[in-house]
Amino acid sequence: MRAHPDERAVIAEFRRALGLRGPHEDAEAAAFCSTRLLAKVDTLVASTDVPPGMSLREAARKAVVACVSDFAAKGARPRLALVSVTLPPRTTRPQVRQLASGLAGAASEFGMAFLGGDTNGGEGLSITVCAMGEAPRRVPRRSGARAGDIVMATGPFGHAAAGLAIATSRRRLAATVRFAAAARRALVRPTPPLRFCAGAAHLFTASMDSSDGLAATLWEIASQGRVRIEVDAAPVGGGVREFAAENGLDAMGLVLYGGEEYETVFACRASSRPALRRRAARLGVNLLEIGRVERGRGVYLADSGRRSRMRNAGWRHLSA
Amino acid sequence: MRAHPDERAVIAEFRRALGLRGPHEDAEAAAFCSTRLLAKVDTLVASTDVPPGMSLREAARKAVVACVSDFAAKGARPRLALVSVTLPPRTTRPQVRQLASGLAGAASEFGMAFLGGDTNGGEGLSITVCAMGEAPRRVPRRSGARAGDIVMATGPFGHAAAGLAIATSRRRLAATVRFAAAARRALVRPTPPLRFCAGAAHLFTASMDSSDGLAATLWEIASQGRVRIEVDAAPVGGGVREFAAENGLDAMGLVLYGGEEYETVFACRASSRPALRRRAARLGVNLLEIGRVERGRGVYLADSGRRSRMRNAGWRHLSA
Repeated sequence: MRAHPDERAVIAEFRRALGLRGPHEDAEAAAFCSTRLLAKVDTLVASTDVPPGMSLREAARKAVVACVSDFAAKGARPRLALVSVTLPPRTTRPQVRQLASGLAGAASEFGMAFLGGDTNGGEGLSITVCAMGEAPRRVPRRSGARAGDIVMATGPFGHAAAGLAIATSRRRLAATVRFAAAARRALVRPTPPLRFCAGAAHLFTASMDSSDGLAATLWEIASQGRVRIEVDAAPVGGGVREFAAENGLDAMGLVLYGGEEYETVFACRASSRPALRRRAARLGVNLLEIGRVERGRGVYLADSGRRSRMRNAGWRHLSA
Repeated sequence: MRAHPDERAVIAEFRRALGLRGPHEDAEAAAFCSTRLLAKVDTLVASTDVPPGMSLREAARKAVVACVSDFAAKGARPRLALVSVTLPPRTTRPQVRQLASGLAGAASEFGMAFLGGDTNGGEGLSITVCAMGEAPRRVPRRSGARAGDIVMATGPFGHAAAGLAIATSRRRLAATVRFAAAARRALVRPTPPLRFCAGAAHLFTASMDSSDGLAATLWEIASQGRVRIEVDAAPVGGGVREFAAENGLDAMGLVLYGGEEYETVFACRASSRPALRRRAARLGVNLLEIGRVERGRGVYLADSGRRSRMRNAGWRHLSA
């Protein structure tokens, strides 16, 4: 059975879209002057990571975003990338073109160049992106938060989980046209705060990308830093409370445990606040102060006059 | 349904086996002093790339080998790697351990360190390895073969295809115990000529890894170099002709079109022959002179007194 498109045609399509003009090589070399390489690999598996209504172009872009988001959290810029695409039987040429165009668009959007890649046939679509770049002089770790720091996040949160609920719920959820559009955009077209963080990460004492969910991210920063985080201003996205109330959903669940937001959560000294706020305002980035770091352990949330221990839960790829 | 093993446990298993001792980070930084980065990504898809009888440990090793082989062909040494593993439902802890141990063993065998990775749930098992290393001062291209060069290959060829035939044929194929063992080893435990090539590639005018099959490799080198290749000593593995005759198979088909050999095929000046032979003898590498480069186009094979045009065919992942 030759249900797959011809490999040469597929490779040619990707190479053209990704701007790989030279002859095909076994491994690709790039001038790359660095003493500290930062690298990240991430796989998007269509069956679990691509909700109904998301185009292949958007899926391919999101595969790149997953890596870019980790670079953002570390204040680094991705420069080079490799991609490995596994295509299911009966993938069509237009579908290949959509994937290639999504990858190429993302590379251009985030200032990266694809070095090369690999194509395979398999049961389902998956896209693995490996991004490489130069690490900043001091890479903020997940573990550096100290008592007295404040906790900030680019955001807001809750739209992506609302978008996922709208896309996957068996019942028809009520949402205003505007909210539904914002929720869909957050889900299918997340944009990590790459530029903001590149010039701000030297002020982060700890940082992490939020793609596993806000709660899981805060718990990781608290655990690695052996500190307690008190969240007193959960970064609830506009319209999330109303959407949740209307549909009998838990607004704080959407905000804390939904995942799929490619934002950066960080701790910093309180004295860094003005500089970070100025930079965010200048770049049009929505920067939110969500809480503070204290001595102790755990993550606590003050919401609607009640303080409670946040669950250490979030998006778990392998147990979904 | 929670059929997948817990993600934290899986990650912990991989991190322990791969020697990732520090806390988990978003993206991993490594001291890497290089002005020319060489990078390669390759995905092993179990449903198409793992024949019956191959263990998960061997499959994981082979995922690394696929990248290492491309580095070998370019005379480079892989140094760092990232891995993304997609696990099907009902993957057990012992299976995770086997995969992790195969990756770790390969890293140690080939002198590489894993920087980090990603785990996902999906329909089928796949392993994507991204390897990075320092490019040699002059990377041999696929395109550099010139009339007058000789063509050499590490080898021999045909065992892996025989091993695949034995593993997958519906009928029971006849083979001596010794040949069956050699064929199985070639299929499940290929070893690229990394060390030989690292000190020999400066003498290659053109080179390529042979994993798509000997014929496809020779055709690529001939096409990119705009030259003709005359093969007058096909590198037929020991026992391959007898095995093929006994089972009504085409020996030359196994040698030329089987693929799955992770050898290096290269062209070089005839004057480089003695130095290359000495190096191969010293390292115990089986180096074979298989033909010569001439003006013209195409690839021709002289075998058993007959000269014929070689088919430009080989292993095609997407049309399998």
